[in-house]
Amino acid sequence: MHHALFAFLLFGLFTAPLAAQQSGKTLQEKLGYPRDAKLLIVHADDLGVTHSVNAASLHALESGGINSASLMVPCPWFPEIADYAKSHPSADFGLHLTLTSERVYYRWGPVAPRDKVPSLVDANGYFHHDWSPEARIDPRDVETELRAQVARALAMGVKPTHLDSHQNRLFQTNKDLFEVILRIGHENHLPVLIPRGWFADFPFLEKSLGPDDVVIDRVITMEPGVPPANWNDFYKHALEHLEPGVTEFVIHLAYADEEMLAATRERETWGAAWRQRDFDFFSSAEFQKLLRDNQIHLITWRDIARLNPSHKME
Amino acid sequence: MHHALFAFLLFGLFTAPLAAQQSGKTLQEKLGYPRDAKLLIVHADDLGVTHSVNAASLHALESGGINSASLMVPCPWFPEIADYAKSHPSADFGLHLTLTSERVYYRWGPVAPRDKVPSLVDANGYFHHDWSPEARIDPRDVETELRAQVARALAMGVKPTHLDSHQNRLFQTNKDLFEVILRIGHENHLPVLIPRGWFADFPFLEKSLGPDDVVIDRVITMEPGVPPANWNDFYKHALEHLEPGVTEFVIHLAYADEEMLAATRERETWGAAWRQRDFDFFSSAEFQKLLRDNQIHLITWRDIARLNPSHKME
Repeated sequence: MHHALFAFLLFGLFTAPLAAQQSGKTLQEKLGYPRDAKLLIVHADDLGVTHSVNAASLHALESGGINSASLMVPCPWFPEIADYAKSHPSADFGLHLTLTSERVYYRWGPVAPRDKVPSLVDANGYFHHDWSPEARIDPRDVETELRAQVARALAMGVKPTHLDSHQNRLFQTNKDLFEVILRIGHENHLPVLIPRGWFADFPFLEKSLGPDDVVIDRVITMEPGVPPANWNDFYKHALEHLEPGVTEFVIHLAYADEEMLAATRERETWGAAWRQRDFDFFSSAEFQKLLRDNQIHLITWRDIARLNPSHKME
Repeated sequence: MHHALFAFLLFGLFTAPLAAQQSGKTLQEKLGYPRDAKLLIVHADDLGVTHSVNAASLHALESGGINSASLMVPCPWFPEIADYAKSHPSADFGLHLTLTSERVYYRWGPVAPRDKVPSLVDANGYFHHDWSPEARIDPRDVETELRAQVARALAMGVKPTHLDSHQNRLFQTNKDLFEVILRIGHENHLPVLIPRGWFADFPFLEKSLGPDDVVIDRVITMEPGVPPANWNDFYKHALEHLEPGVTEFVIHLAYADEEMLAATRERETWGAAWRQRDFDFFSSAEFQKLLRDNQIHLITWRDIARLNPSHKME
């Protein structure tokens, strides 16, 4: 194929859905801000996984360190956070749809009957630690399990504002799994976390989008390899250089207490000390000052969901 | 029926299996002790339920505060205690077969696929908080679930020395459920906790026993209603007045830390403070002195299992 033609087709493929979605306006403009506005969702993941994560995340939510979070329905401490969500219906809580149980000494399994989701469980009935390249994750099992997670959340009084995916499994594995979360989002009238910043690495994301799907500009999250001494600088640099548009900070809060140290002791990544550092930075006056000094406006998934009349909002 | 005849039949009913089982010798004599020996198993329940319970119980096990324990296979922290059991094969660990999830903010469900044990689960897929009088617990579901718990324990490297039952559900509900645990015990060649002290309240226990079933003399356990100030006196009195025969102290250890306080915060019974008091007493020099001063000998389920050649012992 002629290179120029190929480039043209490729260009069309990548920009058409975006143009359709945006109708010429950026997301920040649709939200009532100027085109150069810097909008930020400060989002904690993994609520429900342990008591320590719940306690630290709720402390940050109530003191303004975060303004959004998502909940792991299959995890043992989900009832605690569901109880909170039920009695705080204006909190911006999504579902952190979960298909793995990645720790060693503390584990959980599916919400659906495990014989209905055989490709998702290991020999002992837990979710897999990890998905090996040989794992044949059946999208039908994924759909069964996600429906069970949404059903349990609704039954226990959670009214989610958005959907995202633990370890980004549903975003960064393949088109089939992405289409399952997208379908669950559409059926429940909930926006799904889709940052434009992932399109280059995962082209199937953009190809699957319809005209009503919302795309944010980017996710910023702490990377393995950042030394603890540079933790605050990582976030400070991100805030001082934030580009216009809608950004989500994906952070992981917990206290480095006995429960969390034990639950994560086999490795440091996303472990107890990591999460305590996140908690310390996002609870700091420095973080609040960086938001002010850099004219960053906080928004939530509730604001985004309101843009789409099909999205159920209270 | 004539009263004397009735009494005679009743007497026969209650004593025949006992006589058959004992062949004239008491359990303490079979174990090589004199008839007036006071033998004690100091047994912690609920390992696997939380990290706090695991940590406190293992500390007590390694420092001589307890010498036996049982593990809750369906609970989130079971992998931590299974890993310990696998690397400490001489520890006296039984399975604390579990069919309820009695807390509010922290919960678990069956090991078997939940659609295979419908009478055991609530609308959200957890084990029931409690069994209401209307609950129709199906013994076939119980058997399915207990087999799944034993299979997971074995697959994860636990070699249990005995079986008992969380909240005594399998001992104190009805004959059908007791016969399930007894059958699972026979099939796995494991002794089951059956104290003669329960026969008066639950006559079906004795009726179901065969000649090879082991019966211990009594269980002593802290009762709700004992004021915290009288905690140590309760145990001190029990030790100072211990009758000859085989007694099991059923105790509940944990630290009153954030995890345990949160997991049990809806009520005080068997809560974090209760378990910390148990931990403090059984870790004390006073407890060790009471054992010595009252000529109490410690034994384990491993010693009991060795009496029956059909019991698999390492």
